[in-house]
Amino acid sequence: MVQAKTWILTKHFEGFPKESNFQLKVVDLPEPKDGEVLLEALFLSVDPYMRPFSRVRMKEGDVMIGTQVAKVVQSKNAAFPAGMHVVGRSGWRSHTISDCSDLVPVMPDWPKDVSLSLALGIIGMPGLTALYGLEEVLELKAGETLLVNAAAGAVGSVVGQIAKMKGCKVVGSAGSDAKVAFLKKLGFDETINYKTVGSLEEALRKAAPDGYDCFFENVGGPFSSVAISQMKPFGRIAVCGSISTYNDTDPQTGPFPHMTMIVKQLKMEGFMQSRWEKKNAESLRRLMGWLKQGKLQNREHVTKGFENMPAAFMGMLQGENTGKAIVEV
Amino acid sequence: MVQAKTWILTKHFEGFPKESNFQLKVVDLPEPKDGEVLLEALFLSVDPYMRPFSRVRMKEGDVMIGTQVAKVVQSKNAAFPAGMHVVGRSGWRSHTISDCSDLVPVMPDWPKDVSLSLALGIIGMPGLTALYGLEEVLELKAGETLLVNAAAGAVGSVVGQIAKMKGCKVVGSAGSDAKVAFLKKLGFDETINYKTVGSLEEALRKAAPDGYDCFFENVGGPFSSVAISQMKPFGRIAVCGSISTYNDTDPQTGPFPHMTMIVKQLKMEGFMQSRWEKKNAESLRRLMGWLKQGKLQNREHVTKGFENMPAAFMGMLQGENTGKAIVEV
Repeated sequence: MVQAKTWILTKHFEGFPKESNFQLKVVDLPEPKDGEVLLEALFLSVDPYMRPFSRVRMKEGDVMIGTQVAKVVQSKNAAFPAGMHVVGRSGWRSHTISDCSDLVPVMPDWPKDVSLSLALGIIGMPGLTALYGLEEVLELKAGETLLVNAAAGAVGSVVGQIAKMKGCKVVGSAGSDAKVAFLKKLGFDETINYKTVGSLEEALRKAAPDGYDCFFENVGGPFSSVAISQMKPFGRIAVCGSISTYNDTDPQTGPFPHMTMIVKQLKMEGFMQSRWEKKNAESLRRLMGWLKQGKLQNREHVTKGFENMPAAFMGMLQGENTGKAIVEV
Repeated sequence: MVQAKTWILTKHFEGFPKESNFQLKVVDLPEPKDGEVLLEALFLSVDPYMRPFSRVRMKEGDVMIGTQVAKVVQSKNAAFPAGMHVVGRSGWRSHTISDCSDLVPVMPDWPKDVSLSLALGIIGMPGLTALYGLEEVLELKAGETLLVNAAAGAVGSVVGQIAKMKGCKVVGSAGSDAKVAFLKKLGFDETINYKTVGSLEEALRKAAPDGYDCFFENVGGPFSSVAISQMKPFGRIAVCGSISTYNDTDPQTGPFPHMTMIVKQLKMEGFMQSRWEKKNAESLRRLMGWLKQGKLQNREHVTKGFENMPAAFMGMLQGENTGKAIVEV
């Protein structure tokens, strides 16, 4: 009999997550029935969205939500034979009995020299988020100036690189000198360490004196108020994340952006990459092509050991990672 | 020699405008030169935008900005012969020497039984604002549910009526029982007196339990936070005005809307009707057609006497008007 290690949300988060919000629980798995498979997790993702969505999509006692790259180790489903690698929404589990409804096979011609963990990052949800935010929401054009914050993160670092490929000027903000150095290595035109910069307003103005055509928003909170005030007329804002507010016990407040939005005729749109799911197969091939051509650089922050998932999650929320935060089982 | 009465902004507004912000000044006008005309104001507009734009487009000592319907009384420009009626951006002036660059002739076949003052309202900028906000920004579709605030105002009252013509459910908010009665007369499906309703949140939910597809925003401030939380997935928000914040000395603050915008994938866009100026001639004919067919009802709040312009302006900012606020010289 196979035993699965699982991480349970024992209590909804109040403020910043604590060790006591999580409990490791070992459960016995049944044999897979017809149509089912047994999965073994290889890599698990920890992502910012898990913090706010824990309230929306989970109740206390549930296994933490999340995506993993897994190997089919036993199969009663011909479409998912033993040995296949899949991306699944199994949550924080080492082993899973799945009816396959949430599984997507890893790209069939996945190159041998590329870690499968990238299917959770640059060739996965964060890469697609960056691509769709730029192409579908912002409709970014060559020659435009783009601002992206949390720029050294899983999404932000891809955003900046794709925008450079599209012939844009890219300004990135991140929270340490090491991250800023990483952004420079990726080819960002201007970089800002928002934690040490003094006046964010002045730094943003100096980085792009004529203002910003597009803003890829991952942070929210006070950063957004400063950024919105420096948009050009007809500027577009893609609201992808709001990590600076996820752990608020009382919601942060800021000035209403309405007058700025009217006078500059700004457009602001919230989005999730799942909206363009039908394009995923083609989009993942494009991302993989750019990676293989050296046009996209990948960076991961790997934590080893399933038992360290809560620590990896909390570290990611504190900005410990440069690039994609991954747990390797 | 013709003398012009003008209203000067003596000092920039701090908080709510006061009588002392304005000064009536009489100036002698020269003879019109080649290409110029002498205008006599018949109707002048007082609009919410004048409050925030006074900071952006005026300096102390300038004549107050604004639009008027005027008659050409003397002409040295063949395109604008004596006797023609025009809409011009002359500001708060009884008489003006104009080089004609800002003048638009009133629709040539303007019906005799329709007051020319409507060229400042339902067949003018506010009507166009309503139309473009609904058609160009929101792309409102039949069967959708629309929320509009300041619904008894110059723009809001047209918004609601056009949305009803398009087969939508319309919920309107206004600040008195008399205004709410006016909205009912216009055919609004649900009406809310936001000043007496107790919980705006509950009132909005009761008016549209499934939420709102579209929100035509004229008010801003705390109303916007409540409204945004009740949008349907993929809801659209046209940000037209923010009258509740125009007289702030310290900017009002509210919770950041980012998480709601992400989870519901909302789109919010600020706009000014001038963006679609090329469509104006056709759009004004459409508005006039609806008016003549009885599909659009007009309501004006007329103040008599050029000397009462500051009072009319301040009254409008306090919500004294139902329908369009106009000054008749």
